[in-house]
Amino acid sequence: MSTAARQRTPATDALRAIQAPVHDRLELVVDEMHRIVVSDLPMIEEVSGHLLRMRGKMFRPTLALLSSAVTGSPEPRATRVAAVVELMHLATLVHDDSVDHSVLRRGLPTVNSLFSHQVSVIMGDFLYTRAHRALVDIGDLEFLRILTTVANELTIGEMRQLGALDGVNFSEEDYFALIRAKTAVLLSAACETGALCGAAEYRPHLARYGELLGMAFQIADDILDYTSDSAVTGKPSGLDLREHKVTLPLILARHHFSASGRARVDELFATEEPDDQLIADVVSIVGDAGGIDRARLRGEQLAQQAEDALETLPDSPVRSALTDAISYVMDRRS
Amino acid sequence: MSTAARQRTPATDALRAIQAPVHDRLELVVDEMHRIVVSDLPMIEEVSGHLLRMRGKMFRPTLALLSSAVTGSPEPRATRVAAVVELMHLATLVHDDSVDHSVLRRGLPTVNSLFSHQVSVIMGDFLYTRAHRALVDIGDLEFLRILTTVANELTIGEMRQLGALDGVNFSEEDYFALIRAKTAVLLSAACETGALCGAAEYRPHLARYGELLGMAFQIADDILDYTSDSAVTGKPSGLDLREHKVTLPLILARHHFSASGRARVDELFATEEPDDQLIADVVSIVGDAGGIDRARLRGEQLAQQAEDALETLPDSPVRSALTDAISYVMDRRS
Repeated sequence: MSTAARQRTPATDALRAIQAPVHDRLELVVDEMHRIVVSDLPMIEEVSGHLLRMRGKMFRPTLALLSSAVTGSPEPRATRVAAVVELMHLATLVHDDSVDHSVLRRGLPTVNSLFSHQVSVIMGDFLYTRAHRALVDIGDLEFLRILTTVANELTIGEMRQLGALDGVNFSEEDYFALIRAKTAVLLSAACETGALCGAAEYRPHLARYGELLGMAFQIADDILDYTSDSAVTGKPSGLDLREHKVTLPLILARHHFSASGRARVDELFATEEPDDQLIADVVSIVGDAGGIDRARLRGEQLAQQAEDALETLPDSPVRSALTDAISYVMDRRS
Repeated sequence: MSTAARQRTPATDALRAIQAPVHDRLELVVDEMHRIVVSDLPMIEEVSGHLLRMRGKMFRPTLALLSSAVTGSPEPRATRVAAVVELMHLATLVHDDSVDHSVLRRGLPTVNSLFSHQVSVIMGDFLYTRAHRALVDIGDLEFLRILTTVANELTIGEMRQLGALDGVNFSEEDYFALIRAKTAVLLSAACETGALCGAAEYRPHLARYGELLGMAFQIADDILDYTSDSAVTGKPSGLDLREHKVTLPLILARHHFSASGRARVDELFATEEPDDQLIADVVSIVGDAGGIDRARLRGEQLAQQAEDALETLPDSPVRSALTDAISYVMDRRS
């Protein structure tokens, strides 16, 4: 086992508290991820090594492991299921970065920037197919049913994202279909497959919790783009607006723009590379029209529904951790 | 069903004869492919429609259907298995074209050229995940075991291909590992999964036949690059050499080069964009050093082994079609 593999999972204090009930098993998940992607081809080993070093908060495996433990009797196969879910997430990120020509991810160079576009397309496929092969080995069609459906929905989410560049016509309904497909389905599947490893009776509750958590997660993320200050400019980064991505704050502000505000927003979507001033103006216009407040309210409603979904679960540190995961998602600052 | 879906599968007379025993079921495979990829997202429908119009010779589904019929009792699920195999092949082509920035495939524009690089990465993922979802619905883990392993080997083949650009060090062993992973495993899986739909007792024989056929197929393809005249220049196209791809004729000629011949070959691999004269020279040098003859001999040995693998199968028009498929692969002129 390499030093890199043994390095601590990066985590804020809040996340560490959520992960506490499954901390040891989370380390096993990391080992399992390494085992699943092992290859005798040096190029693949090099890229996998880089990807496993850049791994993130392990939020999805955490949800899977917690879900498997809600009745206190998690099965050993939960480790593999959690590893598969994280590898699927990783495969998606590799293809997303390739599609978006992104340069950095989690502070490290992306596969497409460090190696090549070719390598990133192939490695995304490699990770995904290895993850699925590991799932087949568990020998239970139900996991495959859930996760192949999700894998397909993630690609539909990516395709919907390409349509989310229309400042006028991308609707609230389109937005919810998008964030469901690109984010919520995988969090839901993490909880649902986790539940199948020791808490099958809570499968529908945990699937629903995961989906609602995922929607709230993505809305919080999209709000951050309007509110979080860039380290460089000290102003909201507005990265989504720069790329003409329409998100909930803009959609919920749209009917409350002044005539001049609307003109400025239209200008942004008509400008191929909007400058910082134009972006800052639209951020203000959306905020003044109540878009951010309304989006936050939607997020809070979903968070409340996610908490309600946990209602029938037995009271335990695991259930508390799942509840804390909701606040963690809502309070993120980065 | 659209007109496009009903158009005839393009086929030479030889291929039509091979497909004769399964002709009607091959039409059902096309219908099944349409059903598997159906989507309510217009963008996905548009790209799928384009891809299904450009579908090729349906060689892999033909092998699957023939294999299912060698004892005269093919199961209905063979249709879905054959459709899944062809969709996996299609997904691979979409990503290959994206990785290679290819403009044309089967005389039609590639997805990356007609739509975008983004769309081609996403659509490859879409096709692959839909195909796997359809496979899960059959409810038999054995198909998943075979085809997820193959799907992963195909990505390893792609990665090996990136290493096949080294004119000096890419060995015969590397070459066989490459063509096995990028071509033979999927043909083998087509036959093996087909066998599982009605002729399980011949599973190992048909899997082996498919693998040997696939190796012979790829060698014949690689020889064509040295012998088939380009419609434009009237000289061997040498596309592989242009891209610095090392294939069997070069490898088997390497120890028989004259000093000046070797120097010219080295020059090609040292030149980023070799001109037509340099490529024509290397094609001649490889031919004069016996590379093409030796490669052809290897192909014929594999073809003979493929025929031997069919030895124990009951004599029938289906077995004859499988035998004819070997000659078809060896005699291809394009």
